[in-house]
Amino acid sequence: MEFEESGIGEECGVFGCVAAGEWPTQLEVGQILTLGLVALQHRGQESAGIVTSNGSSPPAYVTLKGMGLVNSAFKAEDLLKLRHGNLGIGHTRYSTTGISELQNCQPFVVDTLHGRIAVAHNGELVNAAALRKKVMRHGVGLSTCSDSELITQLLALTPPMEEADAPDWVARIKNLMTETPTSYSLLIMYKDVIYAVRDPYGNRPLSIGRMVPISKLHSSGGGEGDTEGWVISSESCSFQSIGAKYYREVQPGEIVQVSKYGVKSLCVVPRPEGEPPAFCIFEYVYFARPDSIFEGQMVYTVRQRCGHQLAIEAPTEADVVSTVPESATPAALGYAQESGLPYVEVLCKNRYVGRTFIQPNTRLRQLGVAKKFGALTDNFAGKRVVLIDDSIVRGNTISPIIKLLKELLNAIVHIRVASPPIRFPCYMGINIPTKEELIANKPEFTDIAGYIGATSVRYLSVQGLVAAVQGGTASFGGKELEMISPSNNGIRRLGHCTACLTGKYPVELEW
Amino acid sequence: MEFEESGIGEECGVFGCVAAGEWPTQLEVGQILTLGLVALQHRGQESAGIVTSNGSSPPAYVTLKGMGLVNSAFKAEDLLKLRHGNLGIGHTRYSTTGISELQNCQPFVVDTLHGRIAVAHNGELVNAAALRKKVMRHGVGLSTCSDSELITQLLALTPPMEEADAPDWVARIKNLMTETPTSYSLLIMYKDVIYAVRDPYGNRPLSIGRMVPISKLHSSGGGEGDTEGWVISSESCSFQSIGAKYYREVQPGEIVQVSKYGVKSLCVVPRPEGEPPAFCIFEYVYFARPDSIFEGQMVYTVRQRCGHQLAIEAPTEADVVSTVPESATPAALGYAQESGLPYVEVLCKNRYVGRTFIQPNTRLRQLGVAKKFGALTDNFAGKRVVLIDDSIVRGNTISPIIKLLKELLNAIVHIRVASPPIRFPCYMGINIPTKEELIANKPEFTDIAGYIGATSVRYLSVQGLVAAVQGGTASFGGKELEMISPSNNGIRRLGHCTACLTGKYPVELEW
Amino acid sequence: MEFEESGIGEECGVFGCVAAGEWPTQLEVGQILTLGLVALQHRGQESAGIVTSNGSSPPAYVTLKGMGLVNSAFKAEDLLKLRHGNLGIGHTRYSTTGISELQNCQPFVVDTLHGRIAVAHNGELVNAAALRKKVMRHGVGLSTCSDSELITQLLALTPPMEEADAPDWVARIKNLMTETPTSYSLLIMYKDVIYAVRDPYGNRPLSIGRMVPISKLHSSGGGEGDTEGWVISSESCSFQSIGAKYYREVQPGEIVQVSKYGVKSLCVVPRPEGEPPAFCIFEYVYFARPDSIFEGQMVYTVRQRCGHQLAIEAPTEADVVSTVPESATPAALGYAQESGLPYVEVLCKNRYVGRTFIQPNTRLRQLGVAKKFGALTDNFAGKRVVLIDDSIVRGNTISPIIKLLKELLNAIVHIRVASPPIRFPCYMGINIPTKEELIANKPEFTDIAGYIGATSVRYLSVQGLVAAVQGGTASFGGKELEMISPSNNGIRRLGHCTACLTGKYPVELEW
Amino acid sequence: MEFEESGIGEECGVFGCVAAGEWPTQLEVGQILTLGLVALQHRGQESAGIVTSNGSSPPAYVTLKGMGLVNSAFKAEDLLKLRHGNLGIGHTRYSTTGISELQNCQPFVVDTLHGRIAVAHNGELVNAAALRKKVMRHGVGLSTCSDSELITQLLALTPPMEEADAPDWVARIKNLMTETPTSYSLLIMYKDVIYAVRDPYGNRPLSIGRMVPISKLHSSGGGEGDTEGWVISSESCSFQSIGAKYYREVQPGEIVQVSKYGVKSLCVVPRPEGEPPAFCIFEYVYFARPDSIFEGQMVYTVRQRCGHQLAIEAPTEADVVSTVPESATPAALGYAQESGLPYVEVLCKNRYVGRTFIQPNTRLRQLGVAKKFGALTDNFAGKRVVLIDDSIVRGNTISPIIKLLKELLNAIVHIRVASPPIRFPCYMGINIPTKEELIANKPEFTDIAGYIGATSVRYLSVQGLVAAVQGGTASFGGKELEMISPSNNGIRRLGHCTACLTGKYPVELEW
Repeated sequence: MEFEESGIGEECGVFGCVAAGEWPTQLEVGQILTLGLVALQHRGQESAGIVTSNGSSPPAYVTLKGMGLVNSAFKAEDLLKLRHGNLGIGHTRYSTTGISELQNCQPFVVDTLHGRIAVAHNGELVNAAALRKKVMRHGVGLSTCSDSELITQLLALTPPMEEADAPDWVARIKNLMTETPTSYSLLIMYKDVIYAVRDPYGNRPLSIGRMVPISKLHSSGGGEGDTEGWVISSESCSFQSIGAKYYREVQPGEIVQVSKYGVKSLCVVPRPEGEPPAFCIFEYVYFARPDSIFEGQMVYTVRQRCGHQLAIEAPTEADVVSTVPESATPAALGYAQESGLPYVEVLCKNRYVGRTFIQPNTRLRQLGVAKKFGALTDNFAGKRVVLIDDSIVRGNTISPIIKLLKELLNAIVHIRVASPPIRFPCYMGINIPTKEELIANKPEFTDIAGYIGATSVRYLSVQGLVAAVQGGTASFGGKELEMISPSNNGIRRLGHCTACLTGKYPVELEW
Repeated sequence: MEFEESGIGEECGVFGCVAAGEWPTQLEVGQILTLGLVALQHRGQESAGIVTSNGSSPPAYVTLKGMGLVNSAFKAEDLLKLRHGNLGIGHTRYSTTGISELQNCQPFVVDTLHGRIAVAHNGELVNAAALRKKVMRHGVGLSTCSDSELITQLLALTPPMEEADAPDWVARIKNLMTETPTSYSLLIMYKDVIYAVRDPYGNRPLSIGRMVPISKLHSSGGGEGDTEGWVISSESCSFQSIGAKYYREVQPGEIVQVSKYGVKSLCVVPRPEGEPPAFCIFEYVYFARPDSIFEGQMVYTVRQRCGHQLAIEAPTEADVVSTVPESATPAALGYAQESGLPYVEVLCKNRYVGRTFIQPNTRLRQLGVAKKFGALTDNFAGKRVVLIDDSIVRGNTISPIIKLLKELLNAIVHIRVASPPIRFPCYMGINIPTKEELIANKPEFTDIAGYIGATSVRYLSVQGLVAAVQGGTASFGGKELEMISPSNNGIRRLGHCTACLTGKYPVELEW
Repeated sequence: MEFEESGIGEECGVFGCVAAGEWPTQLEVGQILTLGLVALQHRGQESAGIVTSNGSSPPAYVTLKGMGLVNSAFKAEDLLKLRHGNLGIGHTRYSTTGISELQNCQPFVVDTLHGRIAVAHNGELVNAAALRKKVMRHGVGLSTCSDSELITQLLALTPPMEEADAPDWVARIKNLMTETPTSYSLLIMYKDVIYAVRDPYGNRPLSIGRMVPISKLHSSGGGEGDTEGWVISSESCSFQSIGAKYYREVQPGEIVQVSKYGVKSLCVVPRPEGEPPAFCIFEYVYFARPDSIFEGQMVYTVRQRCGHQLAIEAPTEADVVSTVPESATPAALGYAQESGLPYVEVLCKNRYVGRTFIQPNTRLRQLGVAKKFGALTDNFAGKRVVLIDDSIVRGNTISPIIKLLKELLNAIVHIRVASPPIRFPCYMGINIPTKEELIANKPEFTDIAGYIGATSVRYLSVQGLVAAVQGGTASFGGKELEMISPSNNGIRRLGHCTACLTGKYPVELEW
Repeated sequence: MEFEESGIGEECGVFGCVAAGEWPTQLEVGQILTLGLVALQHRGQESAGIVTSNGSSPPAYVTLKGMGLVNSAFKAEDLLKLRHGNLGIGHTRYSTTGISELQNCQPFVVDTLHGRIAVAHNGELVNAAALRKKVMRHGVGLSTCSDSELITQLLALTPPMEEADAPDWVARIKNLMTETPTSYSLLIMYKDVIYAVRDPYGNRPLSIGRMVPISKLHSSGGGEGDTEGWVISSESCSFQSIGAKYYREVQPGEIVQVSKYGVKSLCVVPRPEGEPPAFCIFEYVYFARPDSIFEGQMVYTVRQRCGHQLAIEAPTEADVVSTVPESATPAALGYAQESGLPYVEVLCKNRYVGRTFIQPNTRLRQLGVAKKFGALTDNFAGKRVVLIDDSIVRGNTISPIIKLLKELLNAIVHIRVASPPIRFPCYMGINIPTKEELIANKPEFTDIAGYIGATSVRYLSVQGLVAAVQGGTASFGGKELEMISPSNNGIRRLGHCTACLTGKYPVELEW
């Protein structure tokens, strides 16, 4: 819950679609892009953009951009303009920079000597400042502060072009990948092709889905002959919304070409010798939708395992287990299952609470989170409650919830947090409060339970989190704990970025 | 879930507030009204209105009305206009008539010979047609089709007024109550007083709360001397949002006067001899927010009891129990607890899916509910699932969910519905599809399981529902079942309207 | 110019249309109403409303209302809803009460015992307060402060109705006319008929037009057999916009029935013995569009005659004559023609200046009217200019114009005003500043030229204005001036309301 | 009138402002920019943009952009953000490309190695295509189709930059001016300076004004010591709106530096030997506001002279002279004066007619221009009218006006056009219909009078137009006509672009 409250956010979601077969097909690419972005809406609510191409030579591109949620950013008559698209890419944006303007909205489209390209980006380039300098030193002016523009200019810039040359975009993409190690998942559209790219560390997710006739959607078979189109998405949760089957992930460092002829892996740009991948572990913990699949496992299941692990690491004498809805619920159910305590609901969320025009300097401000939650008082008056939250970031949102439960119900409230304390900034696309604002870096953290008013507070360990994600065992509190064993279908899940928890960044940061 | 999908809806929510003590006080009545309406937003999303009075003589009234959700219906600068209000009433509207225009928006305000009154109404007058005739025969033109205007004109009309007379609004309200037996919960504001009125059958809810300093909000004590104001609300769930303590319900037939001097019961208009009250049982089943309290019990708890009762009435051999989120979750937890089966989540709701501008004649329409739910496939592949829903109205929304679960997971799906089949129309304020559209009245109902694709389908019995609400035992299937016993604190809960389930209406309907 | 600046305004414009022949016809009544209201937009910019009827029994009415100009008040999809209308009435509103809310927007529609009626009103009932009391004493609540609602309730109220009775709306309208002498031009729609009504004093204008095929629009012939429909409008200027021929005026006190069968004069309610009509003389001076026709003469021509008369009454030694654009131009041309002085333009209006969001407490506020006008400096540097304005109301807008001309050009500026000083309030529908704000009632008026910075200031006399409107001679300054003779085609134009100039009101006002 | 109807339009207006003296001053630069743009609104209504700088090092820039008119493009709260600006530039846009998107909206702002620059442009680069290629060949991607982005990238690109270097923006601007001869008037803001640039041919206008205390605005004196700020504007008409005195024009090829220290001419880039300037003659004919001053003369006066000249070239036997309001009025007054015929008004414009939502396939479409004009029939029934229009472009808008006058009034209508026929496209910023659409290139032109229904049609000659603009004599019809002599204060006005009339372009066009 506190993630949401504290303004932590994922930078973006990207989504692409290519109709298979001879164009024009019956596939309504514009509609699929719209629905795909709606399914990725949790990754960014500030603006949305779609660019489609008819794929002909020269191609006709249509661009739509708007502020706010997908459903309000685009008007019905605008969507009609996308009708002639045979392929397209889209983007939902969460501003990490605080500048929310339409011109920062992606995808970014530029005319180059060899035609128009469109780029959608999820992530944050760790060496963006140096790259901006480089581009500007070349004499290019940059009109936005988005990485997406920077990437398009880098692609346009090197190597120098002559009009006579055939444009080798793949070489340019590879070149880009040597210049910036992380963090990016990219969709690059050029004429009739989408290049799906994941950085060598695989820091941000990117999955491919295959569209089949609705009638064959749920059958296990369905040969490639039935393919109606291909989709590429930050998360696989969008596939179900548009009637696509999960196909596979783009691998760290991989460049995949998606066209009407199918999906083709062009190359894998390697990491430096010995370096493990660094998929963001917070995609599992918080950002991704629970029905998405990463590395062969469902996010919901990982969160449940975190709950199991938390129950092993931090058991409690209590009467019931409950959740701060809705994000902590899988962990709470896992905790309940592992601990054997009954799972109950104690808080009810008012989904209509949003930005009100209420001036802040009033008695009502004191009520704070109470506007957002109703206490289900019959369920645990006087009981000992283990309340599972997904995180404590600043510590100022869980506090009134505890007060509410304690005073209304005379309850004893143990807080168990299904992730480790956040202590370090992220430079790879996650918006985290400054180090000073993080409760884990404050003096109060030594008595966090007292500070937030709980009877006890315990966090999941880093090892426990990693074990819940990767499988294997977790060493905790000096002893080797037996770790619940994820059914990983033989997939090795090694190498996750835990920088915000440990300060160990996957690449050295230059300043 | 299906209630929501099938357009069943409550007519309205009403909310009033009076600042206690000498006016002007520090209490920001306009803000409290706004937040109170936000907390009642689930009862109506089509329009919102607020009228405040400064309570002086003659009073200055300020009226705000707007279409849509409270937070978008009112602009920040409009709310500033309410600053001088010492009391006020508000309304959120769900159109049962299909005419969604600003002029039908409540509260309705009229100038009468004795000054201006404002009226907010939740319910539907069973004899509205006859009353409209009566009013028009008197020579009055009616400018809207809302009961609220009809009520104001009835109040203005009888008995005839002379300017010299002191206006006896209470006599007029009593007179109104003899002319129309049900269904209404009313807030009537006149100058410096709000009259809170519930029809003699108590068909719609109405509760009173007391505002105390935030510091004393959660303490059990707090004498009346601490009272900062009074609020009246369709549901008590709003009290927590604005920092009020639950005080009591307005009783069926009662007229309560709320002023700066406090709360005063003026009279109780009786029902015909021997007639029981008829509080709408669907407030418990579906409409109310789970954290509201009716008749001394929390709605959430009643829904849980429905789940318990359902498990008693319709046990199943299965591996897990789950819910169609979010409304069926309390019943699912109750079912799980009673049956001893583990509770798991199998569906994940995408909260961003709303009205899209997607044209309906496409492949995407076939996907239907799939846009709204993601399947959490790891949790129950190949298992036998008892899926609890709160209702099946038309039968066309649960069907694709079952298909999704069966085909994706090869699961066996038993549907258990935590309410009885709806068979009859409501004339008291609930918007129900026509009799012909209700699945329970169709031939297909004889094989409802086959029709919707489930392995089995069972509904809660009417007796079971009544027992879960009222306590006591429920006779079911020829034998007397032991009923789980609600802790009713000695409150007798007798007399609920079950007309939509049984066809037995609380009053005879004239046509 | 100053009228516009000083917020003087006409209350409203009304427009009605009935398709002739068998319904449904090809005539698009909704579109004609929209265009008709656009042509009357100068009479009210605050809100607009249209009600159409299909004319069947019972009739289906469609109502559209919106704030602002006609073109922004209605959306394209709304206008489609009017497609099935065979007749309809519309209204543009200028708020005289200062309360600009959608619910005050006309036409006002009410259900009565005998069906639904719709009323659009231009004017202001002089005895509105007494009538409101009367209606309320009868037990009717009034929900707006508009005369239009009051009129509908008066029509509904008397005589008492029985459902069995045939409704005699004409008797009710006559009854209404006996209860309130002035000021109103009304359109009352009931089922398949529009009643066009003008008060016995004829205070507000109302004209009838006949729609013919476009091909016959400009031919002088065209029998009634070609009639495609009938329109009724506050001003005839709207006829040209929608392709209608001028037919005739509704006479003072007349009730005209307009239906698909044609135009039928039902009766003329007389004034008290010996009372002359009282058509508002400011319709000629300022409010009406110059291409409208009243009493057989074009408004533009009357304004030109005012200029002629002004030149006769207030001749000046000067080099050029000019105008404060645009409203004073006909008078300026008349003055130039009569005086023999050359007409030049000295001010150029910036049509894009409107409400800016500029905060008022700045240096820019001092510039005032300069934002609105550019000085055409080449035309009269150092010259003696007679500058014609249509009015001086408060005196604070002409002042900076004079300053601009004097200082920029070293010009000598004589102000000649083509209407007499306004000294008294209007109670018949014109919004005039309070008596105290009127420059003509201030001490400064004794040296008005000095006050506004002009070399000399002269107004048209009341007699001169009346003569310009009615023809005949004007006595001025002790001697009988020869009056320019309007070509009145034998029409006697006697009896105009000059209350705002003379304080002589057409009816005795009760307080 | 027909210019307006036929969609001919100027590309843009630019406006800049620098507060003089020590910053921060009292001058509200944001407000001045807003009002300045409102005064230039006639040059572009599609979008508006403002960028301000606080002028410090590094500077803080604030950018506002919006679609539509200035007053609706910016919200009040947005304007507050400009409060800390000490200098700024703004732009109103008329799309010549048909692509009306926010991202094409100017000013264009880019980050370069040496900081952020902002550019506003009026005109159209004749060699834009070649320049785009050049820039892209350098490896730069272009994200819009606006010349403004192209100019910023050209400025950023050459010569190559090193971070250590001091940026020599003036050298870069000079370099730009050697690469593209015309057409541009530019405002380039960098930190605390605005560079005002006019292309060597002076094709687009640009004037400088000096802000003085309001109290000294109209006095002829006022030393530089009173200077409160400097403004630069496409047209001087904006100076009066914001309280500035006309200072001087930027000369063709001149780069002027405007800073808090004052106005400094840096250099004048020459044209090729022997080439005259090429100021767009249509600025005089149609585009500019009549109260603007170019080359020492007021536009209004030039238009009057065109009327005089037209009367000399094309005299007519007639009774009256009139205008198609409003743009043709100065010429009509000039014609009347020269010919000795009386000037009258025959058409009255309805200023509220705009885009209506009326569907086009109706009888109402046939009415066409009649919605826009009312005929003042009293003025010239049966008379011979010389009707002056400013242009005939396609010939389809004057036609219904003539029909209206002829049929309603039995008038004889002679059309006299105060500019020559347009025959050629413009590549320098004016949006002109395709060659094929121009009436002057159609076969019908041989009988243009018959085609549009006039008794006779005559155009002003090219020589006559040039003479009216430049002074001197015009040879016409074989004989040397005496030309009315403009009082040019010794200013030589030589060299105007008449390409759209003659096909002689100021520079050779490459394709």
